[in-house]
Amino acid sequence: MTTTQAGDGTRQTLIEADPDIPVVRMVREFDAPPELVYRAHADPELVRQWMGPRSIDMDIERWDVRTGGEYRYTALRDGEEVAHFYGSFHRVEENRKIVQTFGFEEMPEAVALETLELHDLGDGRTRLEILSVVESMEAQAGMMASGMEVGVDEGYAALDELLAALAGQE
Amino acid sequence: MTTTQAGDGTRQTLIEADPDIPVVRMVREFDAPPELVYRAHADPELVRQWMGPRSIDMDIERWDVRTGGEYRYTALRDGEEVAHFYGSFHRVEENRKIVQTFGFEEMPEAVALETLELHDLGDGRTRLEILSVVESMEAQAGMMASGMEVGVDEGYAALDELLAALAGQE
Repeated sequence: MTTTQAGDGTRQTLIEADPDIPVVRMVREFDAPPELVYRAHADPELVRQWMGPRSIDMDIERWDVRTGGEYRYTALRDGEEVAHFYGSFHRVEENRKIVQTFGFEEMPEAVALETLELHDLGDGRTRLEILSVVESMEAQAGMMASGMEVGVDEGYAALDELLAALAGQE
Repeated sequence: MTTTQAGDGTRQTLIEADPDIPVVRMVREFDAPPELVYRAHADPELVRQWMGPRSIDMDIERWDVRTGGEYRYTALRDGEEVAHFYGSFHRVEENRKIVQTFGFEEMPEAVALETLELHDLGDGRTRLEILSVVESMEAQAGMMASGMEVGVDEGYAALDELLAALAGQE
Protein backbone atom coordinates (compact mmCIF):
# COMPACT_ATOMS: atom_id res chain seq x y z
CA MET A 1 0.00 0.00 0.00
CA THR A 2 1.36 3.36 -1.01
CA THR A 3 1.00 5.88 1.76
CA THR A 4 2.09 9.46 1.65
CA GLN A 5 2.11 11.49 4.81
CA ALA A 6 2.47 15.19 4.38
CA GLY A 7 2.15 17.97 6.91
CA ASP A 8 4.17 20.14 9.20
CA GLY A 9 4.10 17.63 12.02
CA THR A 10 1.10 19.04 13.85
CA ARG A 11 -1.52 18.26 11.23
CA GLN A 12 -0.97 15.43 8.82
CA THR A 13 -2.92 14.44 5.75
CA LEU A 14 -3.05 10.71 5.17
CA ILE A 15 -3.04 9.95 1.43
CA GLU A 16 -3.45 6.26 0.67
CA ALA A 17 -3.66 4.51 -2.69
CA ASP A 18 -5.66 1.28 -2.48
CA PRO A 19 -3.37 -1.54 -3.68
CA ASP A 20 -6.17 -3.49 -5.40
CA ILE A 21 -8.63 -1.04 -6.94
CA PRO A 22 -8.17 2.45 -8.48
CA VAL A 23 -9.18 4.37 -5.38
CA VAL A 24 -7.26 6.96 -3.35
CA ARG A 25 -8.30 7.83 0.21
CA MET A 26 -7.39 11.00 2.06
CA VAL A 27 -8.01 11.79 5.71
CA ARG A 28 -7.37 15.11 7.49
CA GLU A 29 -8.57 16.46 10.82
CA PHE A 30 -9.40 20.09 11.55
CA ASP A 31 -9.85 22.08 14.76
CA ALA A 32 -13.21 23.42 13.65
CA PRO A 33 -16.78 22.09 13.64
CA PRO A 34 -18.24 20.47 10.46
CA GLU A 35 -20.37 23.56 9.71
CA LEU A 36 -17.30 25.75 9.43
CA VAL A 37 -15.26 23.24 7.40
CA TYR A 38 -18.26 22.85 5.07
CA ARG A 39 -18.60 26.62 4.69
CA ALA A 40 -14.91 26.85 3.73
CA HIS A 41 -15.61 24.34 0.93
CA ALA A 42 -18.93 25.81 -0.24
CA ASP A 43 -18.28 29.56 -0.31
CA PRO A 44 -16.08 30.41 -3.33
CA GLU A 45 -14.70 33.52 -1.60
CA LEU A 46 -13.33 31.24 1.17
CA VAL A 47 -12.26 28.40 -1.17
CA ARG A 48 -10.13 30.88 -3.11
CA GLN A 49 -8.20 31.68 0.09
CA TRP A 50 -6.98 28.18 0.89
CA MET A 51 -7.28 25.61 -1.95
CA GLY A 52 -4.17 24.38 -3.74
CA PRO A 53 -0.44 25.04 -3.34
CA ARG A 54 0.65 28.40 -1.86
CA SER A 55 2.35 29.40 -5.13
CA ILE A 56 -0.97 29.16 -7.00
CA ASP A 57 -3.82 31.65 -7.14
CA MET A 58 -7.32 30.49 -8.07
CA ASP A 59 -9.48 32.55 -10.39
CA ILE A 60 -12.92 31.02 -9.74
CA GLU A 61 -15.35 31.52 -12.63
CA ARG A 62 -18.04 29.31 -11.19
CA TRP A 63 -18.54 27.51 -7.86
CA ASP A 64 -22.15 26.40 -7.49
CA VAL A 65 -22.16 23.92 -4.58
CA ARG A 66 -25.58 22.28 -4.94
CA THR A 67 -26.76 18.92 -6.27
CA GLY A 68 -26.46 19.36 -10.04
CA GLY A 69 -24.23 22.44 -9.82
CA GLU A 70 -20.88 22.91 -11.50
CA TYR A 71 -17.50 24.58 -10.90
CA ARG A 72 -14.70 25.97 -13.01
CA TYR A 73 -11.50 27.78 -12.07
CA THR A 74 -8.15 28.75 -13.47
CA ALA A 75 -4.92 28.17 -11.57
CA LEU A 76 -2.47 31.08 -11.89
CA ARG A 77 1.20 31.28 -10.95
CA ASP A 78 2.58 34.86 -10.87
CA GLY A 79 -0.41 35.92 -12.98
CA GLU A 80 0.20 33.26 -15.67
CA GLU A 81 -2.53 30.67 -16.36
CA VAL A 82 -1.15 27.20 -15.62
CA ALA A 83 -4.24 24.95 -15.60
CA HIS A 84 -8.03 25.01 -15.98
CA PHE A 85 -10.05 22.83 -13.62
CA TYR A 86 -13.74 21.98 -13.81
CA GLY A 87 -16.33 19.51 -12.64
CA SER A 88 -19.86 18.88 -11.43
CA PHE A 89 -21.41 18.58 -8.00
CA HIS A 90 -23.30 15.29 -8.32
CA ARG A 91 -24.80 15.42 -4.82
CA VAL A 92 -24.50 17.90 -1.97
CA GLU A 93 -25.66 17.32 1.62
CA GLU A 94 -25.01 20.50 3.61
CA ASN A 95 -22.40 20.19 6.40
CA ARG A 96 -22.01 16.47 5.68
CA LYS A 97 -21.17 15.33 2.17
CA ILE A 98 -20.17 16.51 -1.32
CA VAL A 99 -19.94 14.08 -4.27
CA GLN A 100 -18.27 15.71 -7.26
CA THR A 101 -16.32 15.08 -10.43
CA PHE A 102 -12.85 16.53 -11.00
CA GLY A 103 -11.22 17.23 -14.34
CA PHE A 104 -8.85 19.62 -16.05
CA GLU A 105 -8.75 20.89 -19.61
CA GLU A 106 -5.06 20.05 -20.00
CA MET A 107 -5.85 16.30 -19.72
CA PRO A 108 -9.45 16.03 -20.94
CA GLU A 109 -9.59 12.22 -20.76
CA ALA A 110 -8.79 12.22 -17.03
CA VAL A 111 -11.69 12.33 -14.60
CA ALA A 112 -12.07 11.43 -10.93
CA LEU A 113 -15.22 10.89 -8.91
CA GLU A 114 -14.69 12.32 -5.43
CA THR A 115 -16.73 11.84 -2.27
CA LEU A 116 -15.96 14.26 0.59
CA GLU A 117 -17.43 13.41 3.99
CA LEU A 118 -17.29 15.50 7.16
CA HIS A 119 -17.39 13.59 10.44
CA ASP A 120 -18.09 15.45 13.67
CA LEU A 121 -15.43 14.45 16.23
CA GLY A 122 -17.00 16.57 18.98
CA ASP A 123 -15.19 19.35 20.89
CA GLY A 124 -15.35 21.52 17.75
CA ARG A 125 -13.28 19.13 15.68
CA THR A 126 -13.92 17.48 12.30
CA ARG A 127 -12.45 14.62 10.31
CA LEU A 128 -12.57 15.13 6.52
CA GLU A 129 -12.48 11.92 4.47
CA ILE A 130 -12.12 12.01 0.71
CA LEU A 131 -12.51 8.98 -1.55
CA SER A 132 -11.34 9.46 -5.15
CA VAL A 133 -12.21 6.86 -7.77
CA VAL A 134 -10.62 6.69 -11.21
CA GLU A 135 -11.05 4.23 -14.07
CA SER A 136 -7.78 2.28 -14.00
CA MET A 137 -4.76 1.45 -11.85
CA GLU A 138 -2.67 3.48 -14.35
CA ALA A 139 -4.83 6.55 -13.69
CA GLN A 140 -4.45 5.96 -9.93
CA ALA A 141 -0.65 5.74 -10.32
CA GLY A 142 -0.68 8.94 -12.36
CA MET A 143 -2.66 10.69 -9.64
CA MET A 144 -0.22 9.57 -6.93
CA ALA A 145 2.76 10.64 -9.07
CA SER A 146 1.30 14.07 -9.88
CA GLY A 147 2.75 15.82 -6.84
CA MET A 148 -0.78 16.56 -5.65
CA GLU A 149 0.28 16.04 -2.02
CA VAL A 150 2.02 19.43 -2.10
CA GLY A 151 -1.22 21.18 -3.02
CA VAL A 152 -3.20 19.10 -0.53
CA ASP A 153 -0.79 19.74 2.33
CA GLU A 154 -0.20 23.44 1.70
CA GLY A 155 -3.89 23.96 1.02
CA TYR A 156 -4.98 22.34 4.27
CA ALA A 157 -2.35 24.29 6.24
CA ALA A 158 -3.91 27.48 4.79
CA LEU A 159 -7.36 26.09 5.63
CA ASP A 160 -6.25 25.59 9.28
CA GLU A 161 -5.36 29.29 9.41
CA LEU A 162 -8.58 30.35 7.69
CA LEU A 163 -10.72 28.21 10.05
CA ALA A 164 -8.98 29.74 13.07
CA ALA A 165 -9.66 33.23 11.70
CA LEU A 166 -13.31 32.40 10.95
CA ALA A 167 -13.79 30.90 14.44
CA GLY A 168 -12.34 34.10 15.92
CA GLN A 169 -14.94 36.17 14.05
CA GLU A 170 -17.87 34.19 15.40
CA MET B 1 -15.07 -12.52 -16.09
CA THR B 2 -18.80 -12.07 -15.82
CA THR B 3 -20.34 -11.49 -19.19
CA THR B 4 -23.99 -10.98 -19.89
CA GLN B 5 -25.24 -11.03 -23.43
CA ALA B 6 -28.71 -9.74 -23.95
CA GLY B 7 -30.59 -9.03 -27.13
CA ASP B 8 -32.99 -10.59 -29.56
CA GLY B 9 -30.22 -12.25 -31.56
CA THR B 10 -29.83 -9.57 -34.19
CA ARG B 11 -28.41 -6.87 -31.92
CA GLN B 12 -26.57 -7.83 -28.77
CA THR B 13 -25.35 -5.69 -25.92
CA LEU B 14 -22.14 -6.91 -24.38
CA ILE B 15 -22.10 -6.22 -20.63
CA GLU B 16 -18.83 -7.15 -18.98
CA ALA B 17 -17.77 -6.76 -15.35
CA ASP B 18 -14.00 -6.35 -15.00
CA PRO B 19 -12.78 -9.17 -12.70
CA ASP B 20 -10.09 -7.04 -11.02
CA ILE B 21 -11.38 -3.47 -10.65
CA PRO B 22 -14.89 -2.06 -10.07
CA VAL B 23 -15.58 -1.25 -13.71
CA VAL B 24 -18.39 -2.44 -16.00
CA ARG B 25 -18.05 -2.15 -19.79
CA MET B 26 -20.94 -2.17 -22.25
CA VAL B 27 -20.72 -2.30 -26.03
CA ARG B 28 -23.61 -2.03 -28.50
CA GLU B 29 -23.69 -1.33 -32.22
CA PHE B 30 -26.35 0.67 -34.05
CA ASP B 31 -27.35 0.98 -37.72
CA ALA B 32 -27.17 4.76 -37.60
CA PRO B 33 -24.38 7.34 -37.83
CA PRO B 34 -22.85 8.82 -34.63
CA GLU B 35 -24.69 12.14 -35.13
CA LEU B 36 -28.07 10.41 -34.94
CA VAL B 37 -27.15 8.18 -31.98
CA TYR B 38 -25.83 11.26 -30.18
CA ARG B 39 -29.03 13.20 -30.90
CA ALA B 40 -31.08 10.32 -29.43
CA HIS B 41 -29.03 10.69 -26.21
CA ALA B 42 -29.00 14.50 -26.07
CA ASP B 43 -32.60 15.47 -26.93
CA PRO B 44 -34.85 14.72 -23.91
CA GLU B 45 -37.89 14.30 -26.16
CA LEU B 46 -36.05 11.43 -27.93
CA VAL B 47 -34.47 9.99 -24.77
CA ARG B 48 -37.92 9.66 -23.24
CA GLN B 49 -38.97 7.43 -26.15
CA TRP B 50 -36.33 4.72 -25.74
CA MET B 51 -34.44 4.73 -22.41
CA GLY B 52 -35.09 2.00 -19.84
CA PRO B 53 -37.31 -1.09 -19.76
CA ARG B 54 -40.47 -1.11 -21.91
CA SER B 55 -42.67 -1.30 -18.80
CA ILE B 56 -41.27 2.01 -17.53
CA ASP B 57 -42.17 5.56 -18.58
CA MET B 58 -39.72 8.40 -17.96
CA ASP B 59 -40.92 11.74 -16.70
CA ILE B 60 -37.92 13.96 -17.48
CA GLU B 61 -37.72 17.07 -15.29
CA ARG B 62 -34.32 18.13 -16.51
CA TRP B 63 -31.95 16.94 -19.25
CA ASP B 64 -29.28 19.55 -19.92
CA VAL B 65 -26.63 17.76 -22.01
CA ARG B 66 -23.67 20.17 -21.81
CA THR B 67 -20.44 20.22 -19.82
CA GLY B 68 -21.60 21.17 -16.31
CA GLY B 69 -25.26 20.40 -16.99
CA GLU B 70 -27.50 18.13 -14.96
CA TYR B 71 -30.39 15.68 -15.40
CA ARG B 72 -33.23 14.38 -13.29
CA TYR B 73 -36.12 12.06 -14.14
CA THR B 74 -38.73 9.90 -12.51
CA ALA B 75 -39.40 6.32 -13.61
CA LEU B 76 -43.09 5.44 -13.68
CA ARG B 77 -44.79 2.05 -14.01
CA ASP B 78 -48.51 2.28 -14.82
CA GLY B 79 -48.45 5.88 -13.63
CA GLU B 80 -46.85 5.02 -10.25
CA GLU B 81 -43.47 6.56 -9.35
CA VAL B 82 -40.94 3.74 -8.85
CA ALA B 83 -37.56 5.53 -8.80
CA HIS B 84 -35.95 8.96 -9.09
CA PHE B 85 -32.73 9.21 -11.08
CA TYR B 86 -30.33 12.14 -11.31
CA GLY B 87 -26.80 13.09 -12.18
CA SER B 88 -24.43 15.59 -13.75
CA PHE B 89 -22.87 15.88 -17.19
CA HIS B 90 -19.19 16.30 -16.30
CA ARG B 91 -18.03 16.69 -19.91
CA VAL B 92 -19.86 16.65 -23.24
CA GLU B 93 -18.20 16.46 -26.67
CA GLU B 94 -20.94 16.62 -29.31
CA ASN B 95 -21.38 13.46 -31.42
CA ARG B 96 -18.43 11.82 -29.67
CA LYS B 97 -18.42 11.58 -25.89
CA ILE B 98 -20.49 12.12 -22.74
CA VAL B 99 -18.99 11.77 -19.24
CA GLN B 100 -21.68 11.78 -16.58
CA THR B 101 -22.56 10.69 -13.06
CA PHE B 102 -25.50 8.40 -12.33
CA GLY B 103 -27.43 8.17 -9.08
CA PHE B 104 -30.89 7.52 -7.70
CA GLU B 105 -32.63 8.91 -4.65
CA GLU B 106 -33.65 5.46 -3.44
CA MET B 107 -29.97 4.57 -2.81
CA PRO B 108 -28.28 7.94 -2.19
CA GLU B 109 -24.88 6.49 -1.35
CA ALA B 110 -24.60 4.76 -4.75
CA VAL B 111 -22.98 6.68 -7.58
CA ALA B 112 -21.40 5.64 -10.86
CA LEU B 113 -19.14 7.61 -13.17
CA GLU B 114 -20.04 6.78 -16.76
CA THR B 115 -18.15 7.52 -19.96
CA LEU B 116 -20.13 7.03 -23.21
CA GLU B 117 -18.14 7.05 -26.44
CA LEU B 118 -19.49 6.91 -29.98
CA HIS B 119 -17.21 5.33 -32.59
CA ASP B 120 -17.98 5.81 -36.28
CA LEU B 121 -17.88 2.38 -37.98
CA GLY B 122 -18.56 3.84 -41.43
CA ASP B 123 -21.49 2.86 -43.68
CA GLY B 124 -23.84 4.74 -41.35
CA ARG B 125 -23.05 2.53 -38.37
CA THR B 126 -21.89 3.34 -34.82
CA ARG B 127 -20.40 1.45 -31.91
CA LEU B 128 -21.42 2.79 -28.49
CA GLU B 129 -19.01 1.98 -25.65
CA ILE B 130 -19.89 2.74 -22.05
CA LEU B 131 -17.45 2.48 -19.15
CA SER B 132 -19.03 2.62 -15.67
CA VAL B 133 -16.78 3.05 -12.64
CA VAL B 134 -17.96 2.53 -9.07
CA GLU B 135 -16.09 2.70 -5.75
CA SER B 136 -15.88 -0.96 -4.74
CA MET B 137 -16.16 -4.53 -6.03
CA GLU B 138 -19.30 -4.84 -3.87
CA ALA B 139 -20.89 -1.90 -5.70
CA GLN B 140 -19.91 -3.50 -9.02
CA ALA B 141 -21.52 -6.80 -7.95
CA GLY B 142 -24.65 -4.92 -6.90
CA MET B 143 -24.81 -3.23 -10.30
CA MET B 144 -24.48 -6.56 -12.13
CA ALA B 145 -27.14 -8.14 -9.87
CA SER B 146 -29.61 -5.27 -10.31
CA GLY B 147 -31.28 -6.66 -13.40
CA MET B 148 -30.12 -3.60 -15.33
CA GLU B 149 -29.52 -5.72 -18.44
CA VAL B 150 -33.29 -5.85 -19.01
CA GLY B 151 -33.50 -2.06 -19.16
CA VAL B 152 -30.37 -1.84 -21.28
CA ASP B 153 -31.53 -4.49 -23.73
CA GLU B 154 -35.14 -3.32 -24.05
CA GLY B 155 -34.03 0.29 -24.18
CA TYR B 156 -31.58 -0.30 -27.02
CA ALA B 157 -34.15 -2.36 -28.95
CA ALA B 158 -36.46 0.68 -28.72
CA LEU B 159 -33.54 2.91 -29.74
CA ASP B 160 -32.99 0.73 -32.86
CA GLU B 161 -36.60 1.42 -33.84
CA LEU B 162 -36.35 5.14 -33.07
CA LEU B 163 -33.12 5.50 -35.07
CA ALA B 164 -34.74 3.77 -38.07
CA ALA B 165 -37.71 6.14 -37.84
CA LEU B 166 -35.43 9.21 -37.51
CA ALA B 167 -33.31 8.08 -40.48
CA GLY B 168 -36.51 7.71 -42.52
CA GLN B 169 -37.44 11.33 -41.74
CA GLU B 170 -34.15 12.73 -42.97
